[in-house]
Amino acid sequence: MLQSYLKDTWVTPTDDAAADVHDAVTGDLVCRVSSAGLDLAGAFDHARRTGGPALRALTFHGRADLLDAVAAAVRARREELYALSARAGATLNDARYDVDGGIRVLRDYAARARAELPDAPHLVEGPAERLTRGEDFLGVHLVTPSPGLMLQVNAFNFPVWAPLEKLAQAVLAGMPSVVKAATPTSYLTEHLVRIVTEAGVLPPGALQLVVGSARPALGLLGEQDVLSFTGSAATAATLRTHPNVVARSVRFNAEADSVNAIVLAPDVLPGSPLFDAFVREVVTEMTVKAGQKCTAIRRVLVPGAQESAALDALSAALAGVTVGNPAAEGVTMGAVVSLAQRDDVRRAVRTIAESGRFVHGDPEKVRVVDADPERGAFLDALLLSADPDAAAPHEVEPFGPAATVLAYRDTGHAAELLARGRGSLAASVVGDDVAWTTAFVAQTAAWHGRLHLLDSVNMSLTTGHGSPLPALRHGGPGRAGGGSELGGIRGVVDLMQRTAVQGSRRTLDSLGA
Amino acid sequence: MLQSYLKDTWVTPTDDAAADVHDAVTGDLVCRVSSAGLDLAGAFDHARRTGGPALRALTFHGRADLLDAVAAAVRARREELYALSARAGATLNDARYDVDGGIRVLRDYAARARAELPDAPHLVEGPAERLTRGEDFLGVHLVTPSPGLMLQVNAFNFPVWAPLEKLAQAVLAGMPSVVKAATPTSYLTEHLVRIVTEAGVLPPGALQLVVGSARPALGLLGEQDVLSFTGSAATAATLRTHPNVVARSVRFNAEADSVNAIVLAPDVLPGSPLFDAFVREVVTEMTVKAGQKCTAIRRVLVPGAQESAALDALSAALAGVTVGNPAAEGVTMGAVVSLAQRDDVRRAVRTIAESGRFVHGDPEKVRVVDADPERGAFLDALLLSADPDAAAPHEVEPFGPAATVLAYRDTGHAAELLARGRGSLAASVVGDDVAWTTAFVAQTAAWHGRLHLLDSVNMSLTTGHGSPLPALRHGGPGRAGGGSELGGIRGVVDLMQRTAVQGSRRTLDSLGA
Repeated sequence: MLQSYLKDTWVTPTDDAAADVHDAVTGDLVCRVSSAGLDLAGAFDHARRTGGPALRALTFHGRADLLDAVAAAVRARREELYALSARAGATLNDARYDVDGGIRVLRDYAARARAELPDAPHLVEGPAERLTRGEDFLGVHLVTPSPGLMLQVNAFNFPVWAPLEKLAQAVLAGMPSVVKAATPTSYLTEHLVRIVTEAGVLPPGALQLVVGSARPALGLLGEQDVLSFTGSAATAATLRTHPNVVARSVRFNAEADSVNAIVLAPDVLPGSPLFDAFVREVVTEMTVKAGQKCTAIRRVLVPGAQESAALDALSAALAGVTVGNPAAEGVTMGAVVSLAQRDDVRRAVRTIAESGRFVHGDPEKVRVVDADPERGAFLDALLLSADPDAAAPHEVEPFGPAATVLAYRDTGHAAELLARGRGSLAASVVGDDVAWTTAFVAQTAAWHGRLHLLDSVNMSLTTGHGSPLPALRHGGPGRAGGGSELGGIRGVVDLMQRTAVQGSRRTLDSLGA
Repeated sequence: MLQSYLKDTWVTPTDDAAADVHDAVTGDLVCRVSSAGLDLAGAFDHARRTGGPALRALTFHGRADLLDAVAAAVRARREELYALSARAGATLNDARYDVDGGIRVLRDYAARARAELPDAPHLVEGPAERLTRGEDFLGVHLVTPSPGLMLQVNAFNFPVWAPLEKLAQAVLAGMPSVVKAATPTSYLTEHLVRIVTEAGVLPPGALQLVVGSARPALGLLGEQDVLSFTGSAATAATLRTHPNVVARSVRFNAEADSVNAIVLAPDVLPGSPLFDAFVREVVTEMTVKAGQKCTAIRRVLVPGAQESAALDALSAALAGVTVGNPAAEGVTMGAVVSLAQRDDVRRAVRTIAESGRFVHGDPEKVRVVDADPERGAFLDALLLSADPDAAAPHEVEPFGPAATVLAYRDTGHAAELLARGRGSLAASVVGDDVAWTTAFVAQTAAWHGRLHLLDSVNMSLTTGHGSPLPALRHGGPGRAGGGSELGGIRGVVDLMQRTAVQGSRRTLDSLGA
């Protein structure tokens, strides 16, 4: 039975309504999880009375030091997290994406805070603006820590990166965190919290962990708290409309899966290096973490003239993917997180295939290396081709190694198809015609949280379609949840209270000192 | 029967479920309102297909010109709005606050857009940041207009300022507006829209008006729309949890009434000029618009030692208030908007008085000039004194000419009492001890959208506790709705989509050109 970390102590829940968590590769039982009997009210109180004041007493630079210390603690024991990640179906490459990615966000935020924020507990956004005649009645915005906590409700796919990414912003904002781990990978988040707390680098109450259901915690949230969610749109809707969340205007941030796209511009011809980069990008997105990324490419928009070349090139590249036990030699794609997840993906691709066909892969069978294909949650890389004007490819998201090629007739049609995703976290545009790309971006940007513009100049440098970066806003409109994280210091300020302050020069100077 | 302005035409609803609107002073019928039979779907379509593209085709500077033209049109006919305002109980001073205030926001935003935004349809937030080694893979944030509309759901108390304030930000954001007028003062908003549309200064579809219920409109909102609400927390909760608003992640902004406070610092002694300024501030807040401002002071926190002096000074000043027909000579406070509103205020102050007493005014009777006190919605200025540790003074908001004096024991107690409002739009702190004020602000800022720090230096210059200014954020946490408007250009950008863009230098340069 997995423990939770509450009030600076590891506690074991009672056995009521416990859920089993299985190894994604072998199907063996890994652990059981439950939050029954946990003192969540006590944990919240501890965060507010002990963790919050300790963080708020530090300056932004002092809080940055904590992030570096957490990063060092995780780095020192990252091999343990890599090893455990394999049980969730992750290859070493996948595990690094998760673990090293988390460490990088911590360090990036620490450096950013030192460079861009004052060595003070709050921030004055100036310069002071005159509000009337004369120089003695001025306005600024004061950004102060909210005396509340962040309840993180995380998705299963980034059990290390997600809590660390949210923690980085919360710590800098002077806000303690209560992390709710996603059940299918809760043992990874649990181990992460063990590593951080055993290092003793955070003040008491600054980090707590709830394994199991966090539903009872929603009723404990208050006006100064933040509920930060990553996961499905359906769960987002449940959290967003929780009566207590609504009644107390609890700040709610959602980052939901979306049906992300890549667009091959009309100027890119098969056989060109940029075309090859496009193919690599799609294959990477389909196979990294077995396609279980909320930013992963699900729709591949290509000009009608290049449709068959694109299908051929993608199929050829996918033929090189080796599925199996992530611990085995030569395996390039592991399992999805659970058999239930595998079944969800199968259902989703079958729905899309109703208006199209499978070009590569069979959702019902897969050859695997060093594993039992029935007990492990394995799937082949699944490439579909579908009618671009059908509904399913734009609405149904197979959260696994699957993507659908859709041929567009002209630029207007491509823009229209993009918008049919109803809002996404990320889209890629691949082309060298700067005028075309610029016009296309201006026309379609409002539907996306991030646009990744791949061209011949940057194709060897890109960090990739699917990678959220600390410098850039992460979150998209509509279907993607309408939230915002990261984006540099903006992600920190968004967790704090921005208060307009009107006063005389001497008082505003004193606040900024 | 009041008309609505949809698809560039004035249309009359059917008579189903029409509501009567009465003159606040005489009780006479002013008009009837209904939205029955209106083609709201057609109006939304018109905004999206005609108004939006026309606004988005302009640059920020071109949109600023529209704001100046609207301001000039309203200014040219403002006397008509002043005259009509009297029917809602407003004195000339109150009407100017509403009408001239609205004109000022338009002009301020026009000037701000020219000074702070590019002469382009979108904004690139830079400088470009390096995302990897080398100079060819960079990141910026691109802020583009959302191809949707703003549905304004306004409160009754600012029938001119509120629609213009929201319109200013929406026009600059390239977004057409559908204004839902609050029923009790819908004839004022209707006349405003008549003035603007008769001037012919906005593109077709950029401004439409719905009189009556906008409930059916909620189901028409989409991912690119904004629902901007001002009013009660209860209505905010209804809008926020509307299934379509939730399902499509419609951006929702709420500015709700709150139980705002003023705090007299321990250093301010009775008889001092600053003490007198404090008294003036409270009396102004109680009487302007008969206390019907969402920012108005409801709680007057004073040191225990000054309680009786404060009660005496406030009572003496309130004795100079003359209630009556706003059109009559010498009247300094008009009526609240309706008899129903008067009854609400009476109920609220009686609840507060259960743990205190009336120091000035009687909620059940009032002497009025040139009006019938029973047919008009008149109230005396009502000052209460109550137990500071009781619940009601911090939770119950009499939305009329009423405030409660609460004595605090020490600074910690004052901070604790402030927070018991659970989030406010604005609070004032009155004092000359800069160190005390600074510490108090740092401790309490997170509960407020705006802090107004009154001292001897600025007391003759202040724009007042209750006035939202275009330069400053308007909106507060928790009970105040958790939203944000104004705050300069931030209020415009918040209505647009901020998209992270990763690309090579040549593409990002082209976007910024």
